[in-house]
Amino acid sequence: MVRFGHTRVLCTASLEGRVPVWMRGQGRGWVTAEYGMLPRSTHSRTVREASRGRQSGRTLEIQRLIGRSLRAVIDPARLGERQFIVDCDVIEADGGTRTAAITGAYVALRQAIDAVLPGQDARPVTGMVAAVSCGIVAGVAVLDLDYEEDSSAEADANFVMTDRGTIIEVQTTAERKAFTRDQFNQLFDLASDGIDHIVGLQRSALGTG
Amino acid sequence: MVRFGHTRVLCTASLEGRVPVWMRGQGRGWVTAEYGMLPRSTHSRTVREASRGRQSGRTLEIQRLIGRSLRAVIDPARLGERQFIVDCDVIEADGGTRTAAITGAYVALRQAIDAVLPGQDARPVTGMVAAVSCGIVAGVAVLDLDYEEDSSAEADANFVMTDRGTIIEVQTTAERKAFTRDQFNQLFDLASDGIDHIVGLQRSALGTG
Amino acid sequence: MVRFGHTRVLCTASLEGRVPVWMRGQGRGWVTAEYGMLPRSTHSRTVREASRGRQSGRTLEIQRLIGRSLRAVIDPARLGERQFIVDCDVIEADGGTRTAAITGAYVALRQAIDAVLPGQDARPVTGMVAAVSCGIVAGVAVLDLDYEEDSSAEADANFVMTDRGTIIEVQTTAERKAFTRDQFNQLFDLASDGIDHIVGLQRSALGTG
Amino acid sequence: MVRFGHTRVLCTASLEGRVPVWMRGQGRGWVTAEYGMLPRSTHSRTVREASRGRQSGRTLEIQRLIGRSLRAVIDPARLGERQFIVDCDVIEADGGTRTAAITGAYVALRQAIDAVLPGQDARPVTGMVAAVSCGIVAGVAVLDLDYEEDSSAEADANFVMTDRGTIIEVQTTAERKAFTRDQFNQLFDLASDGIDHIVGLQRSALGTG
Amino acid sequence: MVRFGHTRVLCTASLEGRVPVWMRGQGRGWVTAEYGMLPRSTHSRTVREASRGRQSGRTLEIQRLIGRSLRAVIDPARLGERQFIVDCDVIEADGGTRTAAITGAYVALRQAIDAVLPGQDARPVTGMVAAVSCGIVAGVAVLDLDYEEDSSAEADANFVMTDRGTIIEVQTTAERKAFTRDQFNQLFDLASDGIDHIVGLQRSALGTG
Amino acid sequence: MVRFGHTRVLCTASLEGRVPVWMRGQGRGWVTAEYGMLPRSTHSRTVREASRGRQSGRTLEIQRLIGRSLRAVIDPARLGERQFIVDCDVIEADGGTRTAAITGAYVALRQAIDAVLPGQDARPVTGMVAAVSCGIVAGVAVLDLDYEEDSSAEADANFVMTDRGTIIEVQTTAERKAFTRDQFNQLFDLASDGIDHIVGLQRSALGTG
Repeated sequence: MVRFGHTRVLCTASLEGRVPVWMRGQGRGWVTAEYGMLPRSTHSRTVREASRGRQSGRTLEIQRLIGRSLRAVIDPARLGERQFIVDCDVIEADGGTRTAAITGAYVALRQAIDAVLPGQDARPVTGMVAAVSCGIVAGVAVLDLDYEEDSSAEADANFVMTDRGTIIEVQTTAERKAFTRDQFNQLFDLASDGIDHIVGLQRSALGTG
Repeated sequence: MVRFGHTRVLCTASLEGRVPVWMRGQGRGWVTAEYGMLPRSTHSRTVREASRGRQSGRTLEIQRLIGRSLRAVIDPARLGERQFIVDCDVIEADGGTRTAAITGAYVALRQAIDAVLPGQDARPVTGMVAAVSCGIVAGVAVLDLDYEEDSSAEADANFVMTDRGTIIEVQTTAERKAFTRDQFNQLFDLASDGIDHIVGLQRSALGTG
Repeated sequence: MVRFGHTRVLCTASLEGRVPVWMRGQGRGWVTAEYGMLPRSTHSRTVREASRGRQSGRTLEIQRLIGRSLRAVIDPARLGERQFIVDCDVIEADGGTRTAAITGAYVALRQAIDAVLPGQDARPVTGMVAAVSCGIVAGVAVLDLDYEEDSSAEADANFVMTDRGTIIEVQTTAERKAFTRDQFNQLFDLASDGIDHIVGLQRSALGTG
Repeated sequence: MVRFGHTRVLCTASLEGRVPVWMRGQGRGWVTAEYGMLPRSTHSRTVREASRGRQSGRTLEIQRLIGRSLRAVIDPARLGERQFIVDCDVIEADGGTRTAAITGAYVALRQAIDAVLPGQDARPVTGMVAAVSCGIVAGVAVLDLDYEEDSSAEADANFVMTDRGTIIEVQTTAERKAFTRDQFNQLFDLASDGIDHIVGLQRSALGTG
Repeated sequence: MVRFGHTRVLCTASLEGRVPVWMRGQGRGWVTAEYGMLPRSTHSRTVREASRGRQSGRTLEIQRLIGRSLRAVIDPARLGERQFIVDCDVIEADGGTRTAAITGAYVALRQAIDAVLPGQDARPVTGMVAAVSCGIVAGVAVLDLDYEEDSSAEADANFVMTDRGTIIEVQTTAERKAFTRDQFNQLFDLASDGIDHIVGLQRSALGTG
Repeated sequence: MVRFGHTRVLCTASLEGRVPVWMRGQGRGWVTAEYGMLPRSTHSRTVREASRGRQSGRTLEIQRLIGRSLRAVIDPARLGERQFIVDCDVIEADGGTRTAAITGAYVALRQAIDAVLPGQDARPVTGMVAAVSCGIVAGVAVLDLDYEEDSSAEADANFVMTDRGTIIEVQTTAERKAFTRDQFNQLFDLASDGIDHIVGLQRSALGTG
């Protein structure tokens, strides 16, 4: 269970015996992610995707992002031909659910791989990954926006980075009007500091700090 | 959050402005229920219904049961033309999720109605509803089976009853071989006692005990 | 074709070469059921499920019940690794379609198994199964409700039992208000007598009476 | 219930209060058709479309054909703003189900309109419509092919015509090899005679002969 | 890219390694067709089928027709166990898209087969296939109707024929009122001449003329 | 039709009478985008989304991006209560289809708005929007990758910017290994220059340059 302010996401990793059909017989592993929100995790109830019969574009986009982020620090050859599925279920949403999910998913995946492949010399996990959201509110760069800040933000950004400060994914979107490269650089500085802090929290959770 | 042994179900009730299309303009209210399991709530991971694109027959059957059970203690005319949706999401499953859901859903619905319609003389909630599961294991009637007992049960039963001991719903199924009416009556006696106990717990949770 | 009053259900059993994927290679057989209503079988036309793109929760619930009831009198090991599909299609509906379907499905399945596995010593069919609906109308227990009685019933019950009087499935639901255990026992007595009568009719149809 | 040899199709027409959305408020009526096959109507069981989740291209094609054929003899303005749905359900299939369905659907629709709009001067039904299937088997034109003939036919044709011998729809398909215009004309002659005969049967069924 | 007046259809043929499941291991090949319209190919925008979640009955009907027409001039045994998929995408629609698609699909398929199986003695393509649309407008038979003519036509016909003048498929539909056999024969004469002309254009495109 | 190297995308904008349900009655307009690829636009054929029954996560993600980018330069109040739908259909794909689509979609939308709302003082289009893709190949930042470069890129980036050099959307993804902030800044410089060039091409196409 990962918690950023009021946002709470339950992250679990499960070993699946088989990799997807298109990569069988290659001796390489795979990590995939699924994301969901409980209908009542949001301020006003959202429709249950299972009863509507399909996942929204937003959900698909987020679970693709989580999967890519995790695979960036996994060596598929060392994983062997096995698949891990990481489930990220939002119990309570108050901004930044996708970055909280990535951060928690990394911890859950790392623990699951350690349990399944203990004491292995060539470790399949090649680094750490963490994520933060930030944005521009009233012209100022702000880290980890809550729901209210998010609603009035002029720009919205998600940074996914490693523990060495290198970049895995950057997504920034102007919400009301375009913003400048200077503002973008302020967001980047803020996110880099935030990632450092979060990596420390991940190390504590994993008992590796 | 309702907890029966290791089974944990998150129940929330939300006010929806509008009743379903087929009952608009009649001045009567409606209560509906939705049920879901997190993929990792079970011992081995189950497929996410949202990604599979439809709810299973089991899920539909359970949410119909929860809805009927709640509506049995609601006076639709007193509710006014408004709808409540009760979400029951299983966080951890260890047998008896549907009866735990009914029991928790009642508490959530009662609290939501009290919040929305406080101090009303003609109360829309006309009684209490609680549910237990039980079964026959190795020839003996057992209350509230866990996952292991459930897997080896010869019969499986769910009883939904009121605080006055009257019957809302009885469902019993032979799993391996047909059973006798004597055995059925033992299940019924066990369930009646269980319901009494659970109604007491609901009163405590509601602060009405 | 089974007929209870105005309710008419066409039941056929088909041998399918293969059992479902999850039980292949175990040498055991399987029986599954499908249920449908012609759009015009009801008093006012209902929407065709094929054109709506999915089966309703009610349909899924009923076909699961029919399948479970039939499998309760089948020994899967004696069936061999083959599957029978029983189709129950309601031509005209006037109450009690699910219990009529179970009763007719048993006869169709029995005939199909006898045709496919004639003169076998260890018979895969280990007993007979029949079903009745009943309910409480104006405070009185009534057997085999028609559509009009069903609409005004205070309770609705389905009993599935064997020719030896043992229980396979009991489902009772309060429609308007909860009912007492005494009333439940009256329903049970009525159903037991009804089942006896129906088993006799099944024996005539099978020429085994 | 219409019967051509072993092919049996249950045709019913239902009055729906409302026309489709796209033609509301124009004072004109509409006739639509739905078609389905019971899974066991065919020699070997076919998959139930409701459980597969969608109607096949063949089903959609046939119900579009039935609807067009019926609308060809209906004056929508005289029908008033009301819709009739004609359901054609195949109970037993032995070739020519679509032409049997059209023929029976006309009778059902005519009876339903007469019941709803009795004694009207300006009748909405402007003519009669009937249909036959035929084909080329071993080089010879044959009327109303059964399943076995159909399987070995070199060409397959459906003719939908009025009681005055004019054409509503002609569909001919080469199954194995292209055929000549002479052969086509033989099919046409055969079909014309067949239609005359069927129109007589329809008149008897309607009591207008 | 095939162009008939303002109608433009992009036809491409792709080799797929595998035939459909139901015909594997028989050494015979298969040709299938898919058809689609760009949302803005029509005068007013039509809904995108991918976003609506299913193909319309019209689309399914047309792609079945294209597939049948192509397979009528293919010898599956000589094709070997391989499948060709022909995609027909309408870029601009002005009447007659299905017949334009068949005509262009033949050219695309022929070129693809020649590229994959060059210099083969026993050629899998056994003839040529072309198609035209025609109709009756104001009582007169007209070839290749444009959108405006099509909207006011009394009858609508599609003829699919070989280069030897034999028939593969004939589909004629009365749009407003039934028409006579004389009118039908005029349509047929017109179509035969049209097909001759089109076969010449196909020969030029293929460089075989 | 927009063309970047071998990538060709057909972009059209259509006026829809009505805005989506959730924003009716507010006097504000809306712009939405749909994106699709012809099955044969790619090097090896991709499955048709309409026949598979749903749009992929990638498609939904891209059409959400196109819509957001266009709405960033639209003043909804000046648009009036009308909706424009921009269709982007990829005819041939060779890398950078989403940025080509945004660039072409802007031109199509601008032309459509000018046609519908000519000579208006308060113009609804408040700026220009253009997009480029770039990436890191063998350690070097490269603009507008083709399919081959894209397959071997270490990082992949899409920049959406205005004609004034301000930022609408930045998306960068590490494909194989994380990259540094220096490398990110090189991508940004390259993209800014590319956008300037493309805005010039858009001005020529619009005749405003």
